[in-house]
Formats: sequence, C-alpha cells, structure tokens
Amino acid sequence: MFSVIVMKLNLTTGIIPSLNVSAGLLGFFFVRAWTKALQRCGALKHPFTRQENTVIQTCVVACSGIAFSGGFGSYLFAMSETIAKQSTEANDAQNIKDPKLGWMIGFLFVVSFLGLFSVVPLRKIMIIDYKLIYPSGTATAHLINSFHTPQGAKLAKKQVKTLGKFFVISFLWGFFQWFYTGGDDCGFLAFPSLGLEAYQNRFYFDFSATYVGVGMICPYLVNVSVLLGGILSWGIMWPLIEGKKGDWFPADLPSTSLHGLQGYRVFIAIALILGDGLYNFFKVLARTISAFASQIRSKSSTTTLPITDGNSPTADTTQISYDDQRRTELFLKDQIPNLVAFGGYTAIAIISIITIPHIFPQLKWYYILVTYIVAPVLAFCNAYGCGLTDWSLASTYGKLAIFTIGAWAGLSHGGVLAGLAACGVMMSIVSTASDLTQDFKTGYMTLASPRSMFISQMFGTAMGCVIAPSVFWLFYKAFKDIGVPGSEYPSPNALVYRNMAILGVEGFSSLPKHCLTLCFIFFAAAIVVNLIRDLVPKKVSRFIPLPMAMAIPFYLGSYFAIDMCIGSLILFVWERINKAEADAFAPAVASGLICGDGIWTLPQSVLALAQVKPPICMKFLSRSMNSKVDAYIAKIS
Amino acid sequence: MFSVIVMKLNLTTGIIPSLNVSAGLLGFFFVRAWTKALQRCGALKHPFTRQENTVIQTCVVACSGIAFSGGFGSYLFAMSETIAKQSTEANDAQNIKDPKLGWMIGFLFVVSFLGLFSVVPLRKIMIIDYKLIYPSGTATAHLINSFHTPQGAKLAKKQVKTLGKFFVISFLWGFFQWFYTGGDDCGFLAFPSLGLEAYQNRFYFDFSATYVGVGMICPYLVNVSVLLGGILSWGIMWPLIEGKKGDWFPADLPSTSLHGLQGYRVFIAIALILGDGLYNFFKVLARTISAFASQIRSKSSTTTLPITDGNSPTADTTQISYDDQRRTELFLKDQIPNLVAFGGYTAIAIISIITIPHIFPQLKWYYILVTYIVAPVLAFCNAYGCGLTDWSLASTYGKLAIFTIGAWAGLSHGGVLAGLAACGVMMSIVSTASDLTQDFKTGYMTLASPRSMFISQMFGTAMGCVIAPSVFWLFYKAFKDIGVPGSEYPSPNALVYRNMAILGVEGFSSLPKHCLTLCFIFFAAAIVVNLIRDLVPKKVSRFIPLPMAMAIPFYLGSYFAIDMCIGSLILFVWERINKAEADAFAPAVASGLICGDGIWTLPQSVLALAQVKPPICMKFLSRSMNSKVDAYIAKIS
Repeated sequence: MFSVIVMKLNLTTGIIPSLNVSAGLLGFFFVRAWTKALQRCGALKHPFTRQENTVIQTCVVACSGIAFSGGFGSYLFAMSETIAKQSTEANDAQNIKDPKLGWMIGFLFVVSFLGLFSVVPLRKIMIIDYKLIYPSGTATAHLINSFHTPQGAKLAKKQVKTLGKFFVISFLWGFFQWFYTGGDDCGFLAFPSLGLEAYQNRFYFDFSATYVGVGMICPYLVNVSVLLGGILSWGIMWPLIEGKKGDWFPADLPSTSLHGLQGYRVFIAIALILGDGLYNFFKVLARTISAFASQIRSKSSTTTLPITDGNSPTADTTQISYDDQRRTELFLKDQIPNLVAFGGYTAIAIISIITIPHIFPQLKWYYILVTYIVAPVLAFCNAYGCGLTDWSLASTYGKLAIFTIGAWAGLSHGGVLAGLAACGVMMSIVSTASDLTQDFKTGYMTLASPRSMFISQMFGTAMGCVIAPSVFWLFYKAFKDIGVPGSEYPSPNALVYRNMAILGVEGFSSLPKHCLTLCFIFFAAAIVVNLIRDLVPKKVSRFIPLPMAMAIPFYLGSYFAIDMCIGSLILFVWERINKAEADAFAPAVASGLICGDGIWTLPQSVLALAQVKPPICMKFLSRSMNSKVDAYIAKIS
Repeated sequence: MFSVIVMKLNLTTGIIPSLNVSAGLLGFFFVRAWTKALQRCGALKHPFTRQENTVIQTCVVACSGIAFSGGFGSYLFAMSETIAKQSTEANDAQNIKDPKLGWMIGFLFVVSFLGLFSVVPLRKIMIIDYKLIYPSGTATAHLINSFHTPQGAKLAKKQVKTLGKFFVISFLWGFFQWFYTGGDDCGFLAFPSLGLEAYQNRFYFDFSATYVGVGMICPYLVNVSVLLGGILSWGIMWPLIEGKKGDWFPADLPSTSLHGLQGYRVFIAIALILGDGLYNFFKVLARTISAFASQIRSKSSTTTLPITDGNSPTADTTQISYDDQRRTELFLKDQIPNLVAFGGYTAIAIISIITIPHIFPQLKWYYILVTYIVAPVLAFCNAYGCGLTDWSLASTYGKLAIFTIGAWAGLSHGGVLAGLAACGVMMSIVSTASDLTQDFKTGYMTLASPRSMFISQMFGTAMGCVIAPSVFWLFYKAFKDIGVPGSEYPSPNALVYRNMAILGVEGFSSLPKHCLTLCFIFFAAAIVVNLIRDLVPKKVSRFIPLPMAMAIPFYLGSYFAIDMCIGSLILFVWERINKAEADAFAPAVASGLICGDGIWTLPQSVLALAQVKPPICMKFLSRSMNSKVDAYIAKIS
C-alpha cells in the first residue's frame, strides 16, 4: 500500500513526505485488529507488544523507502527515452536506457542492501554516543509507547492524553489546511507571515505542525543554528550573489538552473555538510581505532567499543535516567556484530561492482568502487544531519554523485547515464541510512531488539526490491503518457535529474563564477568551527552553532527554521512558566504535533490518488497585482 | 480628532467602526498624562477617577457620533447635485439641496438633542429592568475599571493582567490581519472557513476578535438565537427566494437592489425587529402606566417606577451581587427626572417641527410630527437590539424612514429630498439611542453619576453639531471631487441612499412580490414568540429564541453569529473544565478581546487617513478560477 502511495507521488508531484509515523500507527491498528479477532476466537497465545509494533514499522519503511530511493520518479526514469526526448542535449542511444522490469529488480537487489549494512555501525554512534534526537523517530516512539502503556501509571496516562489531544489537533489542522491548497503556492504553507519580500527569500512561517513539534524536541542550539544558517544564506549571501547577476552568472537563466544562483545554493550547502560530516566521521574513526587498539592490548572481553563523546552536540552526559540506562543496555545487548556489517557491506559491494557494469556498461567498475568507498561517509553525514534536524538530504547527495561521476565519465562515454546510475547507487545508501537510523531510534526508545529490527529491515528491503519496480511497471504499462509534461503523471523530477546530469558531464567549469572558491571556504569553515567546538570548554562550546544544522536552510530556505524556532519559543516560555509541567508534557505535545501531521499525509495521499483536489486556493498577492487580478476576474466572469 | 476620523471613513468606504472603546482608552491616557504633569508641578488637587473617565468618553462619543448620524457620507450628502447627477431619475431642482455650512449646523442642532432626551427613559428600562448586556459598553467598563483598580485586591489584579494580555493579543491580531487586506474581499475577514459555497451565503468565521469576545459576554440564548436566525434566513429562506428569480422579482437586478433579494432581506428584518420592539415597547408602557397609577393611588414618595420583569431575556433575578446592588443604587440616586426628559423631548420636537420645513420645504411639518411620534419606539427597538447583540441598526431604521416618508410625499412633491431629510431626523434619534445607552451601561458599571453623564452628552452633542459640519465643509472645500466615483473620496453610501429614496417614492408597490406578505408574517411571528415567552414558565421560556436577535443576521449574514457562537463555545468548554476560573476571568478575556480590536480601529483609521494601504491581499479563489488567474499572472509578468 505504501509503495503504491509513494510511487504515485513520485510520478505526480515528486514530493514524498516521511511515512515513518503512518507506518507505525497503521501497523498498530492492523495488528491490534488482528489480535483482537484472534483473542475472540481464543487463538491468541501472546499479547501484541511494542517491539513487534516497531519491527513491523521498520519493515514497512524499509520496503516503501525503496519506492523513493529506487528513483522511479527521478534518476531511474530520467534514463528513459520519454524524458531524453524532452531535453535538447545528449539524447543519443548511449545515454538512454528504457525501464524494463528485469534489470530494475536486479539493480535494486545489488544496490539496496548496502545501505542496510552501512546503518549497523552508524546506529550506535548516532543514538548512544552522539545521543542525537531524530525528532520523527522519537515522536513515533512516544506514540507507540503510549499505545502500549500499562494501566495504572498516572503521569503516563496524562501524557498519553496530551499526546492524543495534540495528535487530533495537528491532524485536523492538516486537514483544514488542505482545503486551501487548490493550486501552486496556495494555502497556509505559502503564507507570507513576514511580508512578501521576506517570502521571496523564503523567510516565513509555513504553519507546519510537524516542524513546530520538531523544534520543541530539538535542542535550542540546533534550532538557533538552523535559523542562523537561514539568515546567513537567504538573508545575506544569496541576495548579495543575486546582485552579481550578469557578472558572476548569466542573467537570463531560469531560477532552478545549477549554472546560476541555484548552483551556489546546492554546492555551498554540500560543502558545508561535507566539511562537518567528514570532520565528525574522522573523529569517530580515530576514536574507534584508538579504542580498538587499546581493546586488543587489554584483551578486554566486551564486544562494544567504548566511544564516549562529552562534547557531542546534543548529549547531556551528566544525567542519564533509569529509562535511558535500560534502553542503552537492551540496545547494546542484542546487537549485530560489526564484523557481520563490514563483511556484508564488502560482499555485496563486490557483487554489485561485478554486476552493475553489466546493467549499465557506461558505469565502469571503478566508478562504483569509488562510490562505495565514499558512500559510507555521506551516509554518516546524512544520518547525522537527519538526527539533528529531521531533514534527509538524500537527493542532494544523489545530485553530488550525478555531478562528480558524470563529470568523470564525460559526455562521449555515456556520462549522463553513468551519472544517473551513480546517483542511484548513492541515494539507496544515503537515504536508507537516515530512514533506518530514524527507525533504530524508535526501536531504542521502545526497547525493541536491534537484531529483530535488522532482520525485519532485510525482509522489508527484499520485498521492496520486487514490489517497487512491479508497481512502477504497472503504472508504466497502464498509463501510456507517463513522464509527458501536462499529463496525469508528469514525473517532474525525472527531467530535472536528467538536466542535472547533462550539466554534470560538462564538469566543474560549468559551475558559476567563484562557486568553487566559496565551497572551499565553507568546507574549511565547517572544519574550523568543529575544531573550535571541540577545543574550547563546554561552557563556551554550547553557544557555537553547528555547521551541519546551518547548512540545511542554505538549500531549502528558512521557513522550517522559523517553524522550529517557534517550537523552541513555545518550549522556552512553557519552561519559564512551569518547568516541571514542560519537562513532563513537552515531548508528548511535540510528538502529538509531529504524528498528527504525519498521519494526515496518508489520507492526503489517498485523496491525491483518488484525484480529489482541494476546492479553494488561498492566494497571496501584492496590492498592485491584486487590483490587476480583480480587474481580470471581473472581465472573465 | 474622532470627528475627522469618522468623516474620512464616511467619505471613503462608508464603514464606520464603533469608537466607544477607543474614546474611553484615549480619554484615560490623555487625562492621565495631564494629571501626571499637574502632579509634578504640585498643582493637582483631586485624583483622576473612573467617573471622569467615563464622562469624558461619553462626551467624545456624543460628539463624534454626530459625524456619523449627521449623514455626511449618506443621506445629507445624497441631497447634493454631485450625487444627483450620477442617478438617472429625480435630478430636478426640487429634489436637490447642496450642502451649506449654515443650514447643516441649524438642522443638526434641532435634530440631534432629541436623541439625547429619548435615551433618558430608556436607560433605566434597558440597564436595570431588562439587564441587557451591551457587550461593548460592558467591555469598556471593565477596561476603565481595570485602570482605576485600587492596589491590593489580588483577584482584581489577576483579572487586570488577563485583560491586558488578551487586549494585546487582540490588538496584535488586528494589526496582523491588516497586512493581508490589500483589496476588496481580502484577508481573514473573507476567509471561507466553511467552504466557498457557505461563504457565498455569508456563513463563515471572520476571525473578528470583537465578536468572539461579544459571544463570550452575551448569554447563550442570544448567541443561539442569532445563529438560528442566520440559518433560517441565509441558510433556508434567501436561497429559496433566490430560486424564484425571474418570477418573484426580475433576474437581471444588481445584488444590492431593493427591488430584488435585498428588498426581502431589509424589509423582513425590519418587520421582525419592529414586531419584537413594539411588543416590548407596549409591554413596558403598560407596566409603566399601571405602576404609575398604583403609585398615585398609594402616593408613594419614591421617584422611580418599579418595573420588574422576571421574564426579561437576560436577567437572572435570583442573584444580585453586592456590586450590582451598589451600582443600581447609584444609578437610580442621581438620575434625571423623567419629566425633564419628556419635557425636553416635546420642546425640541416643537422647535424642530417649526424650523425644519424652513430648511427643507419638501418635508412638511406633519411628516416630522409623525416621525417624532414613531421615533422613540424605533429608538427603543434599536437600544434593545444593541443591548442584546452589540449591533446598532441605525441605518436600517433610517432606510425605513426614507421609504415610508418618501412614499408618502411622492416624487412630484420632492419626495426624494423629503425621504432623505426624514432619514436624518430618524437616524439621529435612533443612533444616539444605542450609542448613549451603551455609554450609560459603561457608566452603570463604573459607578458614574447619570446626571454628570447626561450633561457631558449635552456638551458633546452641542460640540458635534458645530464640529462635524465644519469638518465636512473643510473636506468639501479642500477636495473638489468629493462624491465622484473613482476619486479619493467617492462617498459610496451617498448614492446608495439617494437610489433608495428614488425607490421609496414609488411606494410599496415597488417592493418585490410577496415581500409585504412575508413582512406581515414575520411581524406577527415576532409578537407570537414574545407572547409565548411571557406566558410559558421560565423553565421553558429560556429555550425560546429571541426574535430581535434572530432578525439581525437576516440582513447582515451569519458570519458574526458564527463568531459569537465560537465565543460561546469557548466559554462553555471553559466552564466545563473550571467553572470558578471561567466565571472570574471570562469577562476579562472577552473585554480584552473586544477592546484590543476596538483600539486597533484607531491606528487603522490613521493609516487610512495617511493613505498607507496594506501591502498584501490574501485572496480566496476556487480551484478552477485559480488556474485561470495563474495563467493570467504568468502572462502579464
């Protein structure tokens, strides 16, 4: 069911919401209905536990995730002739590969399991050592916990009630908003609450209950960093660069062209993320090696690596509650040995290095090898960023792969196709890393066994590798005009990805002026800021913003930063008024907000599938434009 | 200052907000600043009391009220040649009178004081006997009381804090809304929250903090009656009558024409209001006479007439708080003798019957006499309706005068001018009745002496009779194109009033089909419902809706009924959660909401005066219209 929903969204708008929450909740309701039925027949042996709930959820997420990371609305479909015809360049046979069920399933099988294995070592680092928040995962866990709360605990009951209340409010709010989104740039998510000028620069409150909730769960530092990043980029840098239009880059480019301002946005964000990610990756690597070395020296019998990071961005090492102790214990007890993870990764990498060039002759084996060496680092970056801010930037990393591998291969060697295929390899790993670490956070908080979750994810991935291409094949055969602009399934992202690949084969020289220089500066800045954070005492470091969190609005805009800061503000005021109440109920409120909005995506998707469109457009026009529009309306009606 | 604001609004949009709240608050701030200054110089003898505050307010309201009831944007200016030229009929010399400073001041002087005297007997009936709410008056009183609260009372302090908080919220909300109203039908007050279909029939929540507050102060019965009236009229009757288009009335009429649907709306509403008003008027009259008779028989020495009405719509006779006892005592102690009121009314009526025909020869003395006999009844109706729902329908009663006197005089005898002049006579009385009774309610709650208030109102009225025409004269001389459509001061209502007068001279036959029959039915229904209310026991009667409250949405639409019901709902839920807290703080919250929004009208008017227009239009379009508009915008930009 989720695969169908994701596929449909892939091919219509290309915007895929996170479905973790829906999966958890629907899993609960279906299995609860089933166990209730069994109970009536007297056939029920064991009660339905929250571990099972989490395991079902992660299986669904792993399966439906492939419908997104398989690129049926982006890189994979971008290889087809339908899309190639719409672009003027590189529509020769070498750069075209039409979808076929056989090679798609094969490709997904050799690519998708890699992500799964790369998550295993990340799990402990992100959740136990860095104590990252993973707002959606935490919220889902609160929801699942609330369903399985034993009777009697009074505070827990109250929390469940609060969660339920805000769940309903957030759901209804999502529903209400829907009615006013009958068109592009319509509805509350286009509300220029800070004025039209600010809206143009993506400074506005978009009334998203999800991100207000995320802001309430995330530490203040993250929220402030995100806002700072937004101000630095959309408030200062982009307007300045925009002013160089005609000098640094041609003035007549469309706003989405990577040759223009969009190029600065994407690549500077990537540079900043890479700088922060690499720094943290190597920090973890160095500590792991030194811990490993000392472990071998002392021949200690513990299988876990004691990496503790007193300076991690969000950890508060002084207080560990009983809950957290117990969670950590269970989380570490039943884990998958790192050796299995590394072995699995290497084995599958070798298999896919051998097989993929048979599917895409343009993608040479050494490209894949390099991708597989770099991918874990990027997976680390994405899991880390997602843990901080709840945003997965999988497609951004995919674009990086398109660009670099495409440039390396060159147009004459089928670089467009090579770039797109590399994007697929990269995205599977990177997107799986964030989605499943999110799920592991849920598992951690619901005391689910990591090993059961891993096995469930294996199943889910295997299912997804067959189901997702089959669903796509169904769409592709049933609707002849898939990918044609203006049709029912225009698949807008496919053309975007193909154009990006065409740009990529032209190499770094095609980037706008000074873009590369700026990238280097921000890359270095990210490392320097991290170094300072680690060197100064904690008292000072907790006021230094996080480069990773700052980078995310560089590309997206500040609207979600404003949502998150409003969440922070609510929490701050609440803590000032009643600290005890805020501590007890803020996570419940935040989870309610996140989950309600999350579940709303499900009926929303169903409405989209059923072609039910919202009836009204809430539009925002400047006064002068409004008077023109009024005159026009008077004329035609 | 208020006269200038009102005049400007008269001549631009014709929509005049109630300025009672602003007057009270500004009075406080100016006098407080003045007394503070005096205190510093050591020249202050007496502290600034809340009685003085109320007295200042009522003077300002009486003065600026004339800028509205003087009809400079409506009936009075409708007599001018500028407006007459825009209409095709009746633009002969007999039906035209251009504004001149002299006759305007004279006319206002002989007309405006009548209202003042008619209020005196109404005061006690409405406030003490019927215990009507007068939401704005009550809210202003809470505000004034809060400023003059003696230190120490803990609950009062908390209430003041709550009032202040909601005052700021409501003010900021008004300010925020303003930004999105850059055009007609823009902003939150055009938010089709129940869908576009419902919006067309004026069922929507218009986000007005004022009416949510009013709903919290008004009894549930009033709010439910208003909503019922809205459903009956806009939900059932108007759509049914609309379906008879082409049969009952011509199909090609503009929507504002009294020959069409608008005729049913206006006249059925008037019939219902008249039925209820007349019933209550005669009820009071009968009781007064019988009480008076028994008083003479027993030669009782009390000067007040003991009219107690156990079945009054809002009175709860079982409980009278200490506050209310004290208020009633003070209110009755220092009152103006009814004899003075009746004497004054008669004397001024005689003067104006003699003088007005000299100003308007078309308006014969017997027309004026009839108007003066009928006016107190309508003043009673308006004060009563305003006490229940906060809406003054002065202009509706004015329209009634235009229609009846115009029809009586006939076109050939200058009926248009006669109708307009009669409208002026009627509106001064009726509008003063509601405004000043509202103020007396404030005075009652702030323990202000009624006699001081009356004297202050006399002063205010006298000032208004000179200031308002002078301000208009200034505008008229300074801006040559006043009243010309499309100019800076189009004075839209003037033409509407003139057209109404032209319609009036054609008599009742010009009303659409069956309109008169429906009017009789509703008139009778109002009397029957009131009879039932009075005859059945109180247990049952408190579930029978009030015809007066039901009639108001007949003309205006249900949007404010929905606001009020939301206020009711909030109060209801609050009372269910915490009765004590709701009882203590609901009036403060409601007053804060009403006053904050009320004060916002002041800067809003200043912005309008300074030609600062809101920058954004929040527009609501159907999906199909939106796609057309999007295409148009893409074309022109």
